Amino acid sequence: MKNVSKYERGYFTPPVKSTKWMEKEYIDAPPTWCSVDLRDGNQALIIPMSLEEKLEYFQLLVDVGFKEIEVGFPAASETEYAFLRALIEQNLIPDDVTIQVLTQSRDHIIEKTFEALRGAKKAVVHLYNSTSVAQREQVFRKTEEEIIKIAVSGAKLVQKYAEKTEGNFQFQYSPESFTGTEMEFALEICNRVLDVWQPSENNKVIINLPATVSMSMPHVYASQIEYMIDHLHYSDNVIVSLHPHNDRGTGVADAELGMLAGAKRVEGTLFGNGERTGNVDIVTLALNMYSHGIDPKLNFEKLPEIKKIYERLTRMQVSQRHPYGGELVFTAFSGSHQDAIAKGMNYKEEKPESKWSVPYLLIDPKDIGREYEGDIIRINSQSGKGGIGYILKQHYGLELPLEMRESFGYAVKDVSDKNHQELQPAQIHDIFTENYVNISSPIEFLGYKFMNFDDYKTIVHVRENGVDRVLEATGNGRLDAISQALQAHLGIEYTNLIYKEHALESGSESRAVSYVGVTAKDNQVYWGCGIDPDIMTSSVKALFSSVNKIVKVIGKTEMQNS
Amino acid sequence: MKNVSKYERGYFTPPVKSTKWMEKEYIDAPPTWCSVDLRDGNQALIIPMSLEEKLEYFQLLVDVGFKEIEVGFPAASETEYAFLRALIEQNLIPDDVTIQVLTQSRDHIIEKTFEALRGAKKAVVHLYNSTSVAQREQVFRKTEEEIIKIAVSGAKLVQKYAEKTEGNFQFQYSPESFTGTEMEFALEICNRVLDVWQPSENNKVIINLPATVSMSMPHVYASQIEYMIDHLHYSDNVIVSLHPHNDRGTGVADAELGMLAGAKRVEGTLFGNGERTGNVDIVTLALNMYSHGIDPKLNFEKLPEIKKIYERLTRMQVSQRHPYGGELVFTAFSGSHQDAIAKGMNYKEEKPESKWSVPYLLIDPKDIGREYEGDIIRINSQSGKGGIGYILKQHYGLELPLEMRESFGYAVKDVSDKNHQELQPAQIHDIFTENYVNISSPIEFLGYKFMNFDDYKTIVHVRENGVDRVLEATGNGRLDAISQALQAHLGIEYTNLIYKEHALESGSESRAVSYVGVTAKDNQVYWGCGIDPDIMTSSVKALFSSVNKIVKVIGKTEMQNS
Repeated sequence: MKNVSKYERGYFTPPVKSTKWMEKEYIDAPPTWCSVDLRDGNQALIIPMSLEEKLEYFQLLVDVGFKEIEVGFPAASETEYAFLRALIEQNLIPDDVTIQVLTQSRDHIIEKTFEALRGAKKAVVHLYNSTSVAQREQVFRKTEEEIIKIAVSGAKLVQKYAEKTEGNFQFQYSPESFTGTEMEFALEICNRVLDVWQPSENNKVIINLPATVSMSMPHVYASQIEYMIDHLHYSDNVIVSLHPHNDRGTGVADAELGMLAGAKRVEGTLFGNGERTGNVDIVTLALNMYSHGIDPKLNFEKLPEIKKIYERLTRMQVSQRHPYGGELVFTAFSGSHQDAIAKGMNYKEEKPESKWSVPYLLIDPKDIGREYEGDIIRINSQSGKGGIGYILKQHYGLELPLEMRESFGYAVKDVSDKNHQELQPAQIHDIFTENYVNISSPIEFLGYKFMNFDDYKTIVHVRENGVDRVLEATGNGRLDAISQALQAHLGIEYTNLIYKEHALESGSESRAVSYVGVTAKDNQVYWGCGIDPDIMTSSVKALFSSVNKIVKVIGKTEMQNS
Repeated sequence: MKNVSKYERGYFTPPVKSTKWMEKEYIDAPPTWCSVDLRDGNQALIIPMSLEEKLEYFQLLVDVGFKEIEVGFPAASETEYAFLRALIEQNLIPDDVTIQVLTQSRDHIIEKTFEALRGAKKAVVHLYNSTSVAQREQVFRKTEEEIIKIAVSGAKLVQKYAEKTEGNFQFQYSPESFTGTEMEFALEICNRVLDVWQPSENNKVIINLPATVSMSMPHVYASQIEYMIDHLHYSDNVIVSLHPHNDRGTGVADAELGMLAGAKRVEGTLFGNGERTGNVDIVTLALNMYSHGIDPKLNFEKLPEIKKIYERLTRMQVSQRHPYGGELVFTAFSGSHQDAIAKGMNYKEEKPESKWSVPYLLIDPKDIGREYEGDIIRINSQSGKGGIGYILKQHYGLELPLEMRESFGYAVKDVSDKNHQELQPAQIHDIFTENYVNISSPIEFLGYKFMNFDDYKTIVHVRENGVDRVLEATGNGRLDAISQALQAHLGIEYTNLIYKEHALESGSESRAVSYVGVTAKDNQVYWGCGIDPDIMTSSVKALFSSVNKIVKVIGKTEMQNS
């Protein structure tokens, strides 16, 4: 690409090696989750939420289990001011939930922030200023010391107004654009702010280290976080928080590796809404933990409902491939995947005490409110016998013999290939019924009688070309007798009769389903299915289905009259 | 979440520490990119692509610069077979592009694969079988040795048919479901396959290590890759390839850290299409490198066009927040961000030789074919003076004085807040025109004459309530003279006249724009704008606009007749 020389890496690595985090393999306890949906998320919407929408969204966040929720920048916008007042005045903030408000380091803004907070039992007051080289040089045109002065004076003002205001206030500082800041300078400015606030056990301070723009690979961000944690003053009483954005598609990795590096708090949003590429997606972070057997302490058991509310209020779409929430993320169209999933599901049913390990499914979709039907196995021209068999079993209780599934697979593939479309379960069932069930032409089964107790002499009533006939034969079983009668009457031959039967529970009445496969002279196996309240009758209907298919394909060599 | 105890980590860490990759900070050269859009991507579509669509997509991949393209699983599907034949028979594969085909380890499938390849100058034949604990136990119900036998016998068959077939064939083996496989077993099976193929300098073999399902954090995957690379036989002649999926939202990180660990090849797709959550997104990987000043050797300079073709052929949507390609990923609605971006853009214009470091923009959107207008600064109720000023400058060439931008910012915010919608540039321009430009009521400017050469005695023609009048005054400049005349005539007072003027190049004719701000008795600054081909006239019109606004708000204290 022709303009590549205009770029260089714009981030800064720690001055000392900071890779202890690598020794940890996974996150063993959830962080404090802070939702910034209503601030960072909302400010990135094409149409920001109205007051009513924000109130509904706040309730959603509370229901999910967030204990810290950033509700806006009340001094910067009348809407956000009004929203905060509504939360407080209508008493909508549960006792175990702390709201958080953002403020710049300017006297009248901090004053207005605390004015907006009056009556709140507790709150995090989140002070920020930009620290990156680019912001210092291009936007603020200030020296490092002048930038520190902004932060320190803001910290003092926040402290001053907090003392004057009733309520329980925790302080948070963000060196905004941290990822474009020299690590030594980021450390210096945070420590200078901490010196003002004097964190203590009863007055813990949050230092939030945002990847305002993600600029490095995620292991570099983790090392930056580790360096900061190793060198921040008052470290026992400082909570290091992460706030990754997703510019490089690595927001989740940034948060995860940053947690390994020691951060105990993560700011993010549902489904990764937020400025540009979004904030880190807390749904994914939480469910990634869940997949490792760690309770994230957020409840996404009804993810589809959460998604619906989210999409309505933000007017954003959760992408089809978005981890956990996307339409297609548990779906297998491919035959081999469907087959493996179906087998894995059976295995899990057989061994319910085993840990979840179904192939191609990171977690059980049911645990987050997704349905197996419609979510997992979907059928198109890429699909095979496994998936199709699974659909018939799950939706219609039909458990086809393995060899029959293969034959049916081709029939389905043929239709989806020709129609160039996905097939819904009902369409697959239609194809099955049409091709296999109770096929009664050219020869229709009407009834039978077994003549004796000691052998299987049988009389079968059939209708053929509108004419009723009676066939008669003997076999080494009842079905065999009828089979003999049919072969003799129709002048066809087949061997290797395969038979399977099971009960079909559909609605209140129980019926029997039989599957019959026979190998005709052309070496093909012809499959039929019979469904009837009576077991024996269902098997005869299955046989008639097979036989009728043979007749249609091979034809009668010779018409015999009884 | 209540079912958490049914999960445990299902991956396996290397038996020895494998963290050398951590010493590298970034990727300094692109890998070999292999597109699997037409195989893994296509098989995950609700409606797979038709033959014609695949041919068009293949051309797109070639145009982007892919040199390796997996085109399908020809033995598994008639459509994929026909597609491969069309590529070969219609001579659509450029000489520097290698196609790749997937095959299972079964004789008739491998035979059919080579049959599909006849006439291809060269190809990668990609053999795979599943190796994970779950697949071995639940799907195949085979021992480790039996699973190895599948791989080894497939390797031999591939070799056998390759010898019989004309063409240049490279071999690739994937231990499918690698991330659920014990590392020692994955190593063993790969080495056994390599023993069959005997890689050499002229016969390099690809070992592809898929995160078929991403199960661990990305640093664990990187360590797995490093372990494999350290222990694979024939290592000089083995190309280790990555194939990450995105189940945990970390596909990009997996690929990036895996490359640091030594992998030299990446399989992925455009925009991360693929099974479930998708394959790794090669657009993001490539542009992440680009942002670090490394040429990815793929051309995404026309990303919006590529996206359009992609969306049409796959019938998938690129999400609004998808890195680089998403609609909103370079957009700032927030006032402070817009302000910083506008300043950063100016800085870059002033110092064109400086490296790219505009705040909030990881790369220059123009480099990938995105427009500043419409992509970066968009206006809603979250926006401020910076963004609005930027829009007026970029779209209409209007460079408002700083203080006027602030005043105008409130006017715009008011409209977007009330209408609860995003505002387009034309709407913003309308608001500007309506509120500031050539306001001629209640008093309209008709013309003026300067009387003398040595002072600024001026006669102004105006129309007021349909009546033409002539005003006369003297000042210490021409505009001041007219200003004095107006104040005297209207009985109003104001001070502190601010004036700015610039040329307006819009279309073929050049006009002058003037901005005037005056402070009235209520201590508010009233802004007006005048646009006219004549510079002096534009300034007078601006003054009339300001004055008319004062008259409307404050009213005339006393009507004076001339």
